[in-house]
Amino acid sequence: MTKTAKRKRPRVVIVGGGFAGLNAAKSLRKAPVDVVLVDRRNHHLFQPLLYQVATALLSPADIATPIRKVLNRQRNAEVILAEVESVNIERQCLVFESSDFEFDYLILATGATHSYFGHSEWAQTAPGLKTIEDATEIRRRFLIAFETAELEADPEARRAELTFIVVGAGPTGIELAGAMAEIARTVIPRDFRAIDTTTARVVLVEGQTRILPGYPEKSSTDAQRQLEQLGVEILTETFVTEVDEQGVRIGEERIDAGNVLWAAGVEASPLGATLGVETDRAGHVIVEPDLSIKGHPDVFVVGDLAHALDAVTGNRVPGVAQGAIQMGNYVARVIEKEVTSILNGEGHPKRDPFTYKDKGTMATIGRNKAVAVVKGTAFKGRIAWFMWAVIHILFLISFRNRLTVMFSWVWTYLFFDRGARLITGDSHIHVKVPRDLDQ
Amino acid sequence: MTKTAKRKRPRVVIVGGGFAGLNAAKSLRKAPVDVVLVDRRNHHLFQPLLYQVATALLSPADIATPIRKVLNRQRNAEVILAEVESVNIERQCLVFESSDFEFDYLILATGATHSYFGHSEWAQTAPGLKTIEDATEIRRRFLIAFETAELEADPEARRAELTFIVVGAGPTGIELAGAMAEIARTVIPRDFRAIDTTTARVVLVEGQTRILPGYPEKSSTDAQRQLEQLGVEILTETFVTEVDEQGVRIGEERIDAGNVLWAAGVEASPLGATLGVETDRAGHVIVEPDLSIKGHPDVFVVGDLAHALDAVTGNRVPGVAQGAIQMGNYVARVIEKEVTSILNGEGHPKRDPFTYKDKGTMATIGRNKAVAVVKGTAFKGRIAWFMWAVIHILFLISFRNRLTVMFSWVWTYLFFDRGARLITGDSHIHVKVPRDLDQ
Repeated sequence: MTKTAKRKRPRVVIVGGGFAGLNAAKSLRKAPVDVVLVDRRNHHLFQPLLYQVATALLSPADIATPIRKVLNRQRNAEVILAEVESVNIERQCLVFESSDFEFDYLILATGATHSYFGHSEWAQTAPGLKTIEDATEIRRRFLIAFETAELEADPEARRAELTFIVVGAGPTGIELAGAMAEIARTVIPRDFRAIDTTTARVVLVEGQTRILPGYPEKSSTDAQRQLEQLGVEILTETFVTEVDEQGVRIGEERIDAGNVLWAAGVEASPLGATLGVETDRAGHVIVEPDLSIKGHPDVFVVGDLAHALDAVTGNRVPGVAQGAIQMGNYVARVIEKEVTSILNGEGHPKRDPFTYKDKGTMATIGRNKAVAVVKGTAFKGRIAWFMWAVIHILFLISFRNRLTVMFSWVWTYLFFDRGARLITGDSHIHVKVPRDLDQ
Repeated sequence: MTKTAKRKRPRVVIVGGGFAGLNAAKSLRKAPVDVVLVDRRNHHLFQPLLYQVATALLSPADIATPIRKVLNRQRNAEVILAEVESVNIERQCLVFESSDFEFDYLILATGATHSYFGHSEWAQTAPGLKTIEDATEIRRRFLIAFETAELEADPEARRAELTFIVVGAGPTGIELAGAMAEIARTVIPRDFRAIDTTTARVVLVEGQTRILPGYPEKSSTDAQRQLEQLGVEILTETFVTEVDEQGVRIGEERIDAGNVLWAAGVEASPLGATLGVETDRAGHVIVEPDLSIKGHPDVFVVGDLAHALDAVTGNRVPGVAQGAIQMGNYVARVIEKEVTSILNGEGHPKRDPFTYKDKGTMATIGRNKAVAVVKGTAFKGRIAWFMWAVIHILFLISFRNRLTVMFSWVWTYLFFDRGARLITGDSHIHVKVPRDLDQ
């Protein structure tokens, strides 16, 4: 903390405006520090509802809030829109394209994305779901598949257009699969004349022995039954070995499918590796009990980028919103306590290790269909679905978004409608054999 | 109508799902015809509010409705998502990329766009506002300008980033300019630390002698005064002669500006020219008093694509939503009457010529600021603004959109907030001299 001398107060730089970074910034509002939050996007994204943008229920703005707006009344906070190229630990600075930026404390919270397990060439054909752009692209592909099928005369090509493969049966995978099956069966059948959208095939592929592998076994069974009620086909212990424009190969079987969506694997943000400390296989940064990195007590890694252990149970802290929020808040408290103590001439206080409070996990499948686990008790169906809805509304970052999301949900529930069925971007349709429109 | 023999009922093909085309389709709901609406986009777009998407007030889905959804209960209607390449009048068919499609009646309603007056190379630098993609791109540029200025140390480069040129002072131009000035002055000042967003310059450039040239002179004066209250600089009788990345040349003067928006000129859809009949200079198809084209009573051109005269006044029907709606409904009535009469063995009835009912024009400038002309009486300020709001809510195509738009307006009015301040697409920032963040 030698550099602090030339500035009035220590500077805490946070990289990433997700759950971890934004909560760290907010928790530092009364600390005697200058907070600088750096993100390459201008908005905080409420990731748990991103699949609802991909499935035309919500608009992007319903789940995204400008980071500047969230922090605009916090006098000790500044926001910078920029992409960080690397962290230089020795010089205690962030490296940007054309300048450097020093920090006294660093909180790295740049998250993780899905992983194509070494097949990055699949990304083009099988998009994942991490950004607003991903969500509107998936929405485009999903909607245009029905438009294409409506104009396609070749039965096999039409069948392939109406086949949706979702790879990975974690929460995002089951939420996407459930929503797509539900839309095909209840929202759009009336819209088409030549095709029966209720015949659309949604196939959910999972490598492990059951869907929702991170959940208790009962929840997996409950989720499977509810998905099957919606007509979703589930393949477990099955690996995708080939992905191309025509479909996928699953073990020995080939499925012709015009639409493949990727919701499998985890790959940590590449910024973690630039710290030069130990990471796990997926690139998560191994952190100390206080979430700092070895040998650098002023550099913390939080959220999905961290490989952190709960000090009480010794279990890995899961890569979920609650974990990120708790880690962000914890580090903010550590820093505030330390800076205050140093200012008061009391030296460095001892840091208590991070402990994770599991407040429950839940995933939604469709109308009145969900699974939830709260304090060891498993819930399913309407009650789980209602709990899911209440929790997600409460955790939305802005009051305005709570209102608009609630409105969209009530509307969809009442009228079996989805308000954001927009195809943006490329609307061009490619059919193999054009339907004879004169018939 | 010889081809009708092989089909049960005459086929009315409508190209374009804007105000004219969609209203024609809906008005034919009880006619003994098969209606096929063809559009290259899957949604009807409420163009009059598109500038509110560009200025982060509304989300795209708030003003766009899937065409299929609008017509899904209309049993005699079918929707096709496809791009029409040309019309073959002699063979009475539409030509698609890979097939043809015959019609008995054709209603061409593919609209118009802005015109760069022969400088199509300006489109890249100075985007216009016609599609959802245009709106989100303008929103991106508008928001990223402030982000860039916040990080820019060079005072001239910063000045240029905060200079917004709007070319063309018709309704779209004044609405964009007013909204941008208002946002810079009332919505975002608190969000930034290094720049004062209230110093942003919005310059509105118009070639004619006054802004809103299509309106009565009093409205132009009223609009000018209200825009000036918001700090908009207005240049009339001024032509832009150069547009590049650094700014614009206006007559002899050069203005450095990082942001140029185009809202000038009119250029009709190129599909009109493929009819092979007379068009005016902007490519509008000259139509007969019954809106059909010369020599082809079964081919109609409606909406912004048509150069039509009001049978009562002899005046040109203006290119506004009301004109398009009335033309679409009129042609539907002509066709229904004719087909019914022929079916009843009564032969072709005489067609009454089209007459336009001017229900008033209005444009909004900002909070409590607008101009309106209804039955020759000019209104301004809060009353005009309120009239504008009520009319636009009522004309939205879906009830759901009425609710969401109303909610956004009330929210913005109460809290001086804009809910859709999302930068999507390229968020990369280019600064000339990076600000020394260590200061």
